[in-house]
Amino acid sequence: MGDAAARFAEIVGRTHLLAGDQVSEDYAHDESLTTEPRKPAFVAKPATAEEVAALLVAAGEHGVPVTARGAGSGMSGAARPREDGLLISFERMNSVLEIDTGNQVAVVQPGVSLAELDERAAEAGLSYPVYPGELSASVGGTVGTNAGGMRAVKYGVTRHNVLGLQAVLPTGEIIRTGGRTSKISTGYDLTQLIIGSEGTLALATEVVVKLAPRLAHSATLLAPFGDLDQVMRAVPRILEAGLAPHILEYIDNLTMAAITYNEKLSLGIPDEVRDATQAYLVVGLENREADRLDGDVERAGELLGELGASDVYVLEGGSARKLIEAREKAFWTAKAAGADEIIDVVVPRTEMPGFLAEVRELATAAEAGAVGCGHAGDGNLHLGIFCKDQEKRYRLLHDVFAAAIARGGAISGEHGIGHAKKRHYLELEDPAKVALLRRLKQAFDPQGILNPGVLFD
Amino acid sequence: MGDAAARFAEIVGRTHLLAGDQVSEDYAHDESLTTEPRKPAFVAKPATAEEVAALLVAAGEHGVPVTARGAGSGMSGAARPREDGLLISFERMNSVLEIDTGNQVAVVQPGVSLAELDERAAEAGLSYPVYPGELSASVGGTVGTNAGGMRAVKYGVTRHNVLGLQAVLPTGEIIRTGGRTSKISTGYDLTQLIIGSEGTLALATEVVVKLAPRLAHSATLLAPFGDLDQVMRAVPRILEAGLAPHILEYIDNLTMAAITYNEKLSLGIPDEVRDATQAYLVVGLENREADRLDGDVERAGELLGELGASDVYVLEGGSARKLIEAREKAFWTAKAAGADEIIDVVVPRTEMPGFLAEVRELATAAEAGAVGCGHAGDGNLHLGIFCKDQEKRYRLLHDVFAAAIARGGAISGEHGIGHAKKRHYLELEDPAKVALLRRLKQAFDPQGILNPGVLFD
Repeated sequence: MGDAAARFAEIVGRTHLLAGDQVSEDYAHDESLTTEPRKPAFVAKPATAEEVAALLVAAGEHGVPVTARGAGSGMSGAARPREDGLLISFERMNSVLEIDTGNQVAVVQPGVSLAELDERAAEAGLSYPVYPGELSASVGGTVGTNAGGMRAVKYGVTRHNVLGLQAVLPTGEIIRTGGRTSKISTGYDLTQLIIGSEGTLALATEVVVKLAPRLAHSATLLAPFGDLDQVMRAVPRILEAGLAPHILEYIDNLTMAAITYNEKLSLGIPDEVRDATQAYLVVGLENREADRLDGDVERAGELLGELGASDVYVLEGGSARKLIEAREKAFWTAKAAGADEIIDVVVPRTEMPGFLAEVRELATAAEAGAVGCGHAGDGNLHLGIFCKDQEKRYRLLHDVFAAAIARGGAISGEHGIGHAKKRHYLELEDPAKVALLRRLKQAFDPQGILNPGVLFD
Repeated sequence: MGDAAARFAEIVGRTHLLAGDQVSEDYAHDESLTTEPRKPAFVAKPATAEEVAALLVAAGEHGVPVTARGAGSGMSGAARPREDGLLISFERMNSVLEIDTGNQVAVVQPGVSLAELDERAAEAGLSYPVYPGELSASVGGTVGTNAGGMRAVKYGVTRHNVLGLQAVLPTGEIIRTGGRTSKISTGYDLTQLIIGSEGTLALATEVVVKLAPRLAHSATLLAPFGDLDQVMRAVPRILEAGLAPHILEYIDNLTMAAITYNEKLSLGIPDEVRDATQAYLVVGLENREADRLDGDVERAGELLGELGASDVYVLEGGSARKLIEAREKAFWTAKAAGADEIIDVVVPRTEMPGFLAEVRELATAAEAGAVGCGHAGDGNLHLGIFCKDQEKRYRLLHDVFAAAIARGGAISGEHGIGHAKKRHYLELEDPAKVALLRRLKQAFDPQGILNPGVLFD
């Protein structure tokens, strides 16, 4: 181990390698509620792709497992290192290298935060539309988990917005994949294979992302419904209407009560409406031109009424922003309220009413609670699970995930599998696919040094 | 071989297996200009995924290489079978299984043509926006090559519009990947890995595609420019303006003359304008609402004028359709005109002026011709190469591809590598990436039975 430490220090410089007591608790975990923190033996903070490559080669030689870390805001434990391992932190590789307005792309290092990327894009009238709740998340981390978020209903998830990578293979080669264009048919798509691989195949050291024109005008509609099923049935209808919302979220009444209380947010909804509401739909619309937006808001309002909303509130800029921010903090609210697990299961959007009914039944049978909110336009549901008994909770989650898969869905829409959902994944996934994934892992990482224990053992 | 034939016939039924003289010339080639036709030993026409799986298992046992074929409209020879091989033709697996309006997806068998898919989507007010020139192309074929086409500038290419697959692995397992939602972070993305793999990794037996709302109103603007560079410099500016064109094509004057002559198409452009034109830009706009479209057409017209267009013609429905159809036939026009090779090289769109200048120099030095048109919004250029001397042509193409790669581009934007571009690909691609791709191929296809000789040997 001493040899390894000396080698790592030589690569990144003594001040950029931490070992033993120098390693703070922060590096021991991400935001997964159920993955036990573990302090790594080493933390290295490289400054270049070449340093990352040298670290991987050295780790391979010394048999040291390697975990990558961006901002540590992941939800599945994929950035939780091994005790005998090397954590590569991308905190020093945090530059926006280029905002290329002609090609509408940005080239960034993996440690850049989403907040900074969007700020820099905004200066050029552009936007990076991938918008998971946590804007302190690093771009590299979002590549690892294929992060999604609210705006995916219009703009897609990370994989739809990353055009190319510079990446370091576990064998130490530095490769470039994709480019500044979305049209490439030249060999297998390594960009897409690395995205969402949770740090198990290669480490991104540069990311080329698409930027979208920043639309000047936006509005947020809030529609209370007496019945959760009505909300779920309204979702496909709104999308069919061609209004192209950039936000289409549902929030159940318990979650809405908690987030508005926590954020001291008043939305001006009368008590009698609130009391008769089972769930809310939040519809975000945007346009280049103010009068077109007004037309769309009017049309959406009519449609929501036809679909059973008890009322429709067009939120002012300030309260709209606060509601979206509060919704983004739903995870923290659920955590503070004592949720034992938070999942982000996904089903085809038309399956949401049936699936949520099934979840309610399963939770009741397990004497557990399941409340939530989610990216309704994408069928991506965030559920806080309240169930102290670990074994009961495990069975409940197993049944919930199995129900989602039976409806054509998947265990995770955007958080990934990591350590947190691995047991469920291996139990529920087609063994032929798991075997194929293991062979792909072997093709990238013959020594198995990258994030062992994530996805599979 | 006799044993293999008997086994294949047993699987698909005697009437659906062709051998020897029963195999027509049609099965010997696709539309690649430079890949020599080869009649396969067998053609099997399976009806189900299970039959495809059984064929692959039997082919593996008998050591028979397998090539998949959709409509045979590919441009890189990836559907050209081996003489000792089995061609699996998907002509009988040609059903649209479902148009699911709630999730805005279609589920189709691989032999369905793009024309039929779009027709069926249209009945539900939806559209399958992937629109390569050849609408007789099969969906399975477009998955194999990651086909693009004109509308990619707005809607992306095949990989952005396929959400899931049923696929048969060369080892005979039938797997399902992805689903009816665009948000899945559960294991490596096999859907994306199979798309664009040109039949070398797995065979798609069912495809789940996204459908887009069909917009009621569209318009086509034709803008002649005195200078090709001006056209190329106009492209990023139009995209920055946020008009979201669904078509943004350039056509050089020679190509325009040829396609309008061939199709007997009169666009009402005065002779003096035509004679002073070096290239045309075609801008397609669409909208849900007629008045919004009118506003966009007006704005686009002004902008084109500012960017140096000598005039702007808003084409009537009939001539617009005819021009787009003629443009789609540019390949056939170039072929009829005696082009020796047609390439679809891609560069970042801001690199187009410099790249085209470089191509002109290279062509002049090689005493060759290079004319074309292309998907300017995506930097995807289709060039007809006129150069009879095979070795000279090979050097010219090598230099053209190398120039594209040096500018951050790639050999192919949408046609793929196949047999036609393999030598260039292997010479110009990073050897570390080729080695990784070979390991991935091995992970899928340990016996190497799927399309050997495509991409690499």
